[in-house]
Amino acid sequence: MKNVVAPRIAALHGYVPGEQPSDAERVIKLNTNENPYPPSPRVATAVADAASRLALYPAPLADPLREAAAARYGVDPEQVLVGNGSDELLAICLRACACDGGSVAYPVPTYSLYATLASIEGARAIEVPMEPGADLPEALLMSGADVIFLCSPNSPYGTPIRLNEIARAAERAPGLVVADEAYVDFGGESALELLVDHPNLLVLRSFSKSFSLAGLRLGLAFASAALIAELAKVKDSYNVSRLAIAGGVAALNDYEWMTGSVQKVARTRDRVIETLRARGYRIEDSRANFFWLDCGDDGGDVVSRRLRDRGILVRFFDTPVLRSGVRVTVGTDEDMDAFLGAMLD
Amino acid sequence: MKNVVAPRIAALHGYVPGEQPSDAERVIKLNTNENPYPPSPRVATAVADAASRLALYPAPLADPLREAAAARYGVDPEQVLVGNGSDELLAICLRACACDGGSVAYPVPTYSLYATLASIEGARAIEVPMEPGADLPEALLMSGADVIFLCSPNSPYGTPIRLNEIARAAERAPGLVVADEAYVDFGGESALELLVDHPNLLVLRSFSKSFSLAGLRLGLAFASAALIAELAKVKDSYNVSRLAIAGGVAALNDYEWMTGSVQKVARTRDRVIETLRARGYRIEDSRANFFWLDCGDDGGDVVSRRLRDRGILVRFFDTPVLRSGVRVTVGTDEDMDAFLGAMLD
Repeated sequence: MKNVVAPRIAALHGYVPGEQPSDAERVIKLNTNENPYPPSPRVATAVADAASRLALYPAPLADPLREAAAARYGVDPEQVLVGNGSDELLAICLRACACDGGSVAYPVPTYSLYATLASIEGARAIEVPMEPGADLPEALLMSGADVIFLCSPNSPYGTPIRLNEIARAAERAPGLVVADEAYVDFGGESALELLVDHPNLLVLRSFSKSFSLAGLRLGLAFASAALIAELAKVKDSYNVSRLAIAGGVAALNDYEWMTGSVQKVARTRDRVIETLRARGYRIEDSRANFFWLDCGDDGGDVVSRRLRDRGILVRFFDTPVLRSGVRVTVGTDEDMDAFLGAMLD
Repeated sequence: MKNVVAPRIAALHGYVPGEQPSDAERVIKLNTNENPYPPSPRVATAVADAASRLALYPAPLADPLREAAAARYGVDPEQVLVGNGSDELLAICLRACACDGGSVAYPVPTYSLYATLASIEGARAIEVPMEPGADLPEALLMSGADVIFLCSPNSPYGTPIRLNEIARAAERAPGLVVADEAYVDFGGESALELLVDHPNLLVLRSFSKSFSLAGLRLGLAFASAALIAELAKVKDSYNVSRLAIAGGVAALNDYEWMTGSVQKVARTRDRVIETLRARGYRIEDSRANFFWLDCGDDGGDVVSRRLRDRGILVRFFDTPVLRSGVRVTVGTDEDMDAFLGAMLD
């Protein structure tokens, strides 16, 4: 057979998403940071309405959602780029700013997709170890990378990066600084307010977590209008469907639904962490919809398998730094009581 | 401001989609090859049903749609890759096979996105002029390109590339050969049957045209399982939403709805072409849902503006070869009578 695939791609290991059981399988799903509560009912209504106009292409820049996001977050519509999930927007940042042998830097551990996206783009990945809650490492600020990814709150620990640290990164970095705020609604501080002073800063948001819309695939990038116009050049021409645009607008217009859902998750999170701490577990404070559980001598692999046997999925990452524990998404109180029962009995 | 965007991207002109007027504007839209008839009503039902499960991520490889497509088209599910529109699948082909300074070749004129995608990927574009309906040019077969795009039926003429020509390209090319069959349901012959003998061939389909689902963003790639597995590495992890998966399955399961719609469009197309020929226009036979109209001394720009003034959008391409005419999408009989009235009075 002809080798039609580039050698670099043939050698690449693709991203491995967390297990997605079929909809028929009954499990307690605490492995991919989904929201256990449903999205605003207005989303389904808006989607059903938009389903009557599917014969026509969507607006290439998803104008109705761009406008709704601008109004909600206090920026101009031209400062918003809508993506097919924030994953697409991360890839777009690399395509525009770290192509042709560029480089990308990020503290580790963090969202494991960053490394995969760097491999796909052929960008050099500069991974700088960082303790949860620490200041940004000097090696990161000095990296000279074309793109710096800062996940805040960060996965898998749930710890935020302070705003003055993000501002410092934007000031010192010669390239693009991306504040990936997929989890910020659960208790982080947003870097959106820094955009006005930092034209090389981009803030990313996702509808997958706080808005309970992982299945819709929708993300937002906020930056200067000039930067957004450049990034838009490298996206697919019609990257967001009519259904996603309509659903996203409806979700933003029912913002209180989201904040209510987020408050419930945060309360459950804090209760579960306290319970585990009382039983001797050391757990970082989390500002996200998950927390990191160090499993001690058992290690994360054994614990995640034991939980799997009881119908509970958590996330195990088989890397030197992370194989000692698991990342646990915060579900409903009932889900988490089952989790605590399985962990503590 | 820091120059965070790569110089090659800053210099790039993004793809210019055909005009997409707001849904409120009443025009006869013959400019972006949408289907004038609605999709199967089963799509809206399936979408509404899937909207109740949006809190969870979709299947990363869109398994339900993969399986439905495999059953419909007589291949294995592992031979199918589902994309966020066939545009995403075109980009994926370049990312996997023409990255790091690779090359892509295609006959011109053709789908203008190919050139944009090559620019985004930094691939060298080898454009080989070809007359409508001609054999593939020797320069194309000899190009040695990493990827060859063959749009069949081709835009903007509507002329197909014969299957033995596609097979010849797959035999002689050292790289990937993509048969882009976005319009094949309107009367072309599919290269799907060639897959078994040509592991470097990939066949692309779109739901945007024949299935009346341009607003849903959905495409399919068919190839050997080994090639599909490589391409899947460079797609976004969750590239297709739950709504698109459900809608696509419903559309495939109501295949007769699509063929009925396609037959109506083809009948209207042939009638309009005959009418125009009787008035002296020279028009190629089209196997697509559009045709090419040479506008003679008036040129395409003047004609498209004149039609625009009467509320009819057609597509004008401002290139040396194409500025003499316009591409006209086939609408309903009523749409086309309005078009004929505007052209011939």
